[in-house]
Amino acid sequence: MLLEEIVEKIAPLDDDAMEAARRRQDSLIKPQGALGRLEELSIRVAGITGNSRPEIKKKMIVTMAGDHGVTEEGVSAYPKEVTAQMVYGFLGGRAAINVLARHVGAEVVVVDMGVAHDFEDAASRRGLINKKVGYGTNNIAKGAAMSYEDAVRSIEAGIEVFKEFCGDADIVGVGDMGIGNTTPSSAITAFVTGRPPEEVTGRGTGLDDAGLQRKINAVRRALEVNEPRRDDAIDVLAKLGGFEIGGMAGVILAAAAERTPVVIDGFISGAAALIAYELAPQVKDYLIASHRSVEKGHDAIYEYIGLEPLFDLRMRLGEGTGAALAIGIVEAACKILNEMATFEEAGVSKKL
Amino acid sequence: MLLEEIVEKIAPLDDDAMEAARRRQDSLIKPQGALGRLEELSIRVAGITGNSRPEIKKKMIVTMAGDHGVTEEGVSAYPKEVTAQMVYGFLGGRAAINVLARHVGAEVVVVDMGVAHDFEDAASRRGLINKKVGYGTNNIAKGAAMSYEDAVRSIEAGIEVFKEFCGDADIVGVGDMGIGNTTPSSAITAFVTGRPPEEVTGRGTGLDDAGLQRKINAVRRALEVNEPRRDDAIDVLAKLGGFEIGGMAGVILAAAAERTPVVIDGFISGAAALIAYELAPQVKDYLIASHRSVEKGHDAIYEYIGLEPLFDLRMRLGEGTGAALAIGIVEAACKILNEMATFEEAGVSKKL
Repeated sequence: MLLEEIVEKIAPLDDDAMEAARRRQDSLIKPQGALGRLEELSIRVAGITGNSRPEIKKKMIVTMAGDHGVTEEGVSAYPKEVTAQMVYGFLGGRAAINVLARHVGAEVVVVDMGVAHDFEDAASRRGLINKKVGYGTNNIAKGAAMSYEDAVRSIEAGIEVFKEFCGDADIVGVGDMGIGNTTPSSAITAFVTGRPPEEVTGRGTGLDDAGLQRKINAVRRALEVNEPRRDDAIDVLAKLGGFEIGGMAGVILAAAAERTPVVIDGFISGAAALIAYELAPQVKDYLIASHRSVEKGHDAIYEYIGLEPLFDLRMRLGEGTGAALAIGIVEAACKILNEMATFEEAGVSKKL
Repeated sequence: MLLEEIVEKIAPLDDDAMEAARRRQDSLIKPQGALGRLEELSIRVAGITGNSRPEIKKKMIVTMAGDHGVTEEGVSAYPKEVTAQMVYGFLGGRAAINVLARHVGAEVVVVDMGVAHDFEDAASRRGLINKKVGYGTNNIAKGAAMSYEDAVRSIEAGIEVFKEFCGDADIVGVGDMGIGNTTPSSAITAFVTGRPPEEVTGRGTGLDDAGLQRKINAVRRALEVNEPRRDDAIDVLAKLGGFEIGGMAGVILAAAAERTPVVIDGFISGAAALIAYELAPQVKDYLIASHRSVEKGHDAIYEYIGLEPLFDLRMRLGEGTGAALAIGIVEAACKILNEMATFEEAGVSKKL
């Protein structure tokens, strides 16, 4: 089974590479530690890659799309057709993720994990990757989102995407598109972290008060109706999840197995990280948390896994937009490690 | 008088350009406001430049160096020779600011505002800009840092640097180098914001507890001995300042006068922003605060002026390193405004 193979392959960070990177950071012409989290990032990327002077050249962002049956509960401010429309938008190159990926020199891979639309034309002509597991999930407020087999299939599809498109990448970001997908993400977050639904359910793309109440109720019913198994993250994904959430979990697991830093984006990719973390807690060391989203519940994910986001620009878009900006910061961190002169090289006096 | 001319030239933001930029942001294929501070930044740059679709192409970072007589009080962890050594480092292209400026596509202008060293060779051969006002300031714990005339001269030198090197820049960042310069910055911050010295005096490049106490005492004595005039920011700069602090204040004022967004870096450039703000409160709208520094007292500056930094990566290096990363974010923000498709162009359905 592909998933088990990948999980078993995830190894600890390379301590020797990290130690060598730390020593080099301490020898560069700046007070020790003065570049703060940039230094820490470069050292962690050394540990992830096993290379004490890692370079971030090939940058990939995997943006995965899926539809959600729970939209029939009135939990989104946008009609569900927008999922497919935005996929066309990504392929057209003028959505936010395209702009920000170009800005940091990253390539975007757009994957249909389970959109309720046939993209045959787009898939053949414009590079959409077809890993469709279904035409949208079932309504989680009434039953399981998908079968157990489809949950495995969605994670394995993510692993395949990594292998097919990101095998030689120096860093990978994950992002999402799916009208309604903050609802399954809130359900997963509530279940895995043990927080009450109202603490981890937010306004998504812009719900009013009544919509927020409907959404909290939908999350509560999803938990009651489905009763996921606490010891089986695939069951959690099957009952509460989404195809794109499973796909992103697969990308995260494969990235960790292949010693590639993987940058998570907002709340939805955070829910995917929760699934990946429950399957293989050792992925934590490979995860880079880009930003703190406006979406309520994001912090619950970070606290549960033990991650600290790099910035908070009050973003709440998804698509991988926060991950794109973070990739630029990680690249900068590695350039510091690689390109700066040492005290000795530059003839600069050390600390008194 | 050049300084008065520049201060008078600083105009309010262009409301029409901001309104047009805001309307465009709201028409792009994303929920309104979903890109948070990126949207706000792009709108502000529209107001600054008077262009509703601003582009950030030419990016300049002005890194100004100066020495400080107060180092004789034992207030720095590094010997004062490091100021000149680091200037050579900047010219060599392998200091942190060079690396991060290259990363965001910015050019670095290195200015000798008052280093206690003769750079004749470097100035002619390697592009160091000579605006030397003196060979280091006097010890502020014993008297004024410089004469009133030199304070004016340092600000006007900054204005000249902007005019000579940044006149056609789309964005300018300011940064500093000067062993001992957190001490005058703490003194300026304490005086202008009214906070007690111990609240705004930190460990700089890495002081131990005894060093920190010496530094707090030096700041306290600087305030007692000098008694700056509350209504004259040039007097504050003359008595408590540094040549590079005055120079950065000049760059900030000139940038605002020429409708160019100006990105401030850490604590020292924050002290320069305080001087500029006291001379011309309308500069506030032109200032972009890059990061929150580890250095104690930085928040006091942001709170006094009313600025919110874009990120906190626990950096404390100066040189313009935080400004460089922020320039990349501002550029991304403007690309969002310029390059994204509208709902109409992309055929995406709007909010329900």
